Amino acid sequence: MNVVDIIRKKRDGYVLEKDEIDFLISGYTKNEIPDYQFSAFLMAAYLKGMNPKETSYLTNSMLHSGKILNLNSIPGIKIDKHSTGGVGDKTSLIIAPIATAAGIKVPMISGRGLGHTGGTLDKLESIPGIRTDLSIKEYKNILKKCGAVLIGQTKDIAPADKMIYALRDVTATVESIPLITASIMSKKLAEGIDGLVLDVKTGSGAFMKNEKDAVQLTNSLISTAKAFNKKVIAFITDMNQPLGNYIGNWLEVYESILILKGEKKNDLYDLCIKLAGAMIFLGGKSKSIEEGESIANEQIKNGKAFKKFLEIVKAQGGDVSYIRNPEKYPKASYNKIIKSTVNGYLKTVNTFELGMAAIELGAGRMKKEDKIDPTAGIIFNYKIGDKIENGNVLAEIFSNDKKAILNVEKRFNKLVEFSKNKVNPPKLIKRIIKQGE
Amino acid sequence: MNVVDIIRKKRDGYVLEKDEIDFLISGYTKNEIPDYQFSAFLMAAYLKGMNPKETSYLTNSMLHSGKILNLNSIPGIKIDKHSTGGVGDKTSLIIAPIATAAGIKVPMISGRGLGHTGGTLDKLESIPGIRTDLSIKEYKNILKKCGAVLIGQTKDIAPADKMIYALRDVTATVESIPLITASIMSKKLAEGIDGLVLDVKTGSGAFMKNEKDAVQLTNSLISTAKAFNKKVIAFITDMNQPLGNYIGNWLEVYESILILKGEKKNDLYDLCIKLAGAMIFLGGKSKSIEEGESIANEQIKNGKAFKKFLEIVKAQGGDVSYIRNPEKYPKASYNKIIKSTVNGYLKTVNTFELGMAAIELGAGRMKKEDKIDPTAGIIFNYKIGDKIENGNVLAEIFSNDKKAILNVEKRFNKLVEFSKNKVNPPKLIKRIIKQGE
Repeated sequence: MNVVDIIRKKRDGYVLEKDEIDFLISGYTKNEIPDYQFSAFLMAAYLKGMNPKETSYLTNSMLHSGKILNLNSIPGIKIDKHSTGGVGDKTSLIIAPIATAAGIKVPMISGRGLGHTGGTLDKLESIPGIRTDLSIKEYKNILKKCGAVLIGQTKDIAPADKMIYALRDVTATVESIPLITASIMSKKLAEGIDGLVLDVKTGSGAFMKNEKDAVQLTNSLISTAKAFNKKVIAFITDMNQPLGNYIGNWLEVYESILILKGEKKNDLYDLCIKLAGAMIFLGGKSKSIEEGESIANEQIKNGKAFKKFLEIVKAQGGDVSYIRNPEKYPKASYNKIIKSTVNGYLKTVNTFELGMAAIELGAGRMKKEDKIDPTAGIIFNYKIGDKIENGNVLAEIFSNDKKAILNVEKRFNKLVEFSKNKVNPPKLIKRIIKQGE
Repeated sequence: MNVVDIIRKKRDGYVLEKDEIDFLISGYTKNEIPDYQFSAFLMAAYLKGMNPKETSYLTNSMLHSGKILNLNSIPGIKIDKHSTGGVGDKTSLIIAPIATAAGIKVPMISGRGLGHTGGTLDKLESIPGIRTDLSIKEYKNILKKCGAVLIGQTKDIAPADKMIYALRDVTATVESIPLITASIMSKKLAEGIDGLVLDVKTGSGAFMKNEKDAVQLTNSLISTAKAFNKKVIAFITDMNQPLGNYIGNWLEVYESILILKGEKKNDLYDLCIKLAGAMIFLGGKSKSIEEGESIANEQIKNGKAFKKFLEIVKAQGGDVSYIRNPEKYPKASYNKIIKSTVNGYLKTVNTFELGMAAIELGAGRMKKEDKIDPTAGIIFNYKIGDKIENGNVLAEIFSNDKKAILNVEKRFNKLVEFSKNKVNPPKLIKRIIKQGE
């Protein structure tokens, strides 16, 4: 088999065979195929596409580039959730404890911030003492003991994905549905799960700006999951504004605590109940998603979800005193209140730029080697459709970098648009797609 | 400017600006842009195309990656010819002396064998003592003295092309009309020529298998030449059988001698008269191509073309005694006569495979580091449409490698097809395209 022939075949729009895809991925992972040939293949695959069969072969090759965890020794049905990423999306921190409190096992391998979005790992790591770089043995032990565990991708899991992702990032081949599908699914399948709830985001703060692309990606993810006999429920959800009101690592942990304690009800709460309800249903603990939702709701009301969160944080080495008393967490050195300068209804939020502003404040990395400031971020008080008056506090920004505060303050009012007329809020859950539907 | 943004722009089918193309080529040539990004760009350009403006910007960038020769100090109009390559195509060796004998200056920078085709440099170098790696100073001196010179691409001329070509070869991005155009034209424009005759080959032994692609490439070459104010006449010619009867390096020099001495008249002769006629016309030494053809014909009849060939070979250090007495040239150790096993009319020649057979015999390189056997090759006696009888000598093969002789002999009869019925010979010159037509 010859690399150039395989690239040419994809370039000319033909469907690749399993052994050709295996040859490419195994050759690239073993450094036998150089970057420059693999990037030509990636661009050909980007432009000519890959069909569902090719996508599942690609997923399979990437999955088998590393270890596949076997969780059979741990009783219970294991369900994870994956979100395609957005601004203020902290649902993992909330639904993992809810679903676990309802009897589901939740083994989660999460990622770091990417582009304008935050990452579950970075958020968790704002909790002093917590560890996310657990060994496989520790991962299994905590899952067994607590019912949930949240770690980062180890180098044993789908190493091909790590290499391919880095190359896609610098060759303009990121936004490809088959490549995204294989990247997500190869990691998720390696976790040893039985089922997966997908939260595919669409809108100004999502990677998929329009719903059509989001539906395509969802269908591709579902068909790949099916090829591996995994149960899936997918939600296509709105990302035209931040999810919840807090953006930034500790700020998001703080909002998660409020939700878990039942002290806050907002769009974030609603979505978490939906996602957790679907996990509970997939895990066989309810007869429908709706019943799963009321079970999820119950776990908040009866305090079990919050208790489970404390338990998970403690098991991973985190200092739970900050979870019990979040007010003792150190504050950012600088903060600034942003007031509305107009009367009207909030019409649009440039969520991508809002995410970028949070990153500039220190909530993410501008360059790979940057350190995250856990206290940095934005509290954004309004939702699209809300009425706002001149002088109302639109947002508050936090940072240890004074220059960043000034920069973000200066451009903040350009990130939002108001309307004199009433504005309908966007629908939070745009679509639910179950396997086989 | 950012490489990834430029790759993304081309990937999405947008037209690149001059400064973006300059940024890419200059960055790649200076090793500031890595191979893996440039190959992603090449695949995007392959699949999304480049318009005539982009193609001329690309040509310009590649041209300016190295030296551009200035031949103003040498009086006369300088005309070169470029062929896209085929099997048995030795026209350069013949038309350079003809056109020069007619008063044209012919500065030729030629290439080596590529794929199944031979290269002018490899053919010339079968003449003992000849040098093709001349300095720019020697190049100019010989051009001034003889009126013609044939050298190889120096590392000063269009170095970007050399780098890009090597990368295209291993990333399945060779057969792209804009990329081929820029590769050809950047080298030709660097020669300091006033005009160019193009011989674009089409058929089983050409890189462009069908005429439609050949016409597209021709139009692209002409429009690029126009952008640089160079006069061009293009011929689209048949490559469904070898040109002339001899394939292999010294064998082709030998056939060239026969043509130049007026001792042989065949398709090769006809094409050379056409091409030389067009060069003479472009160089202002005739009022039409037809008049140029009769002047070309005259240079053979009056012996001036052959005399000029001796002069050029001598100026480049070649031993002209072999040109005067070709029979003293050493013979290959092994040869084999291939006889026809059927009666009929020659219908098709698998010219690609015939070229590959010549290469296996030693006339070209199977691997980059292979040494060429100047005596190796094939004499192919018939033309499509010719009547052949069982036992007639179809071909003779030559090599210093006994195993290669046996291999080629075994498969030789599969390379040709015969018909019981009369077969029309293919039209040698399919189309003539002049600038602005």
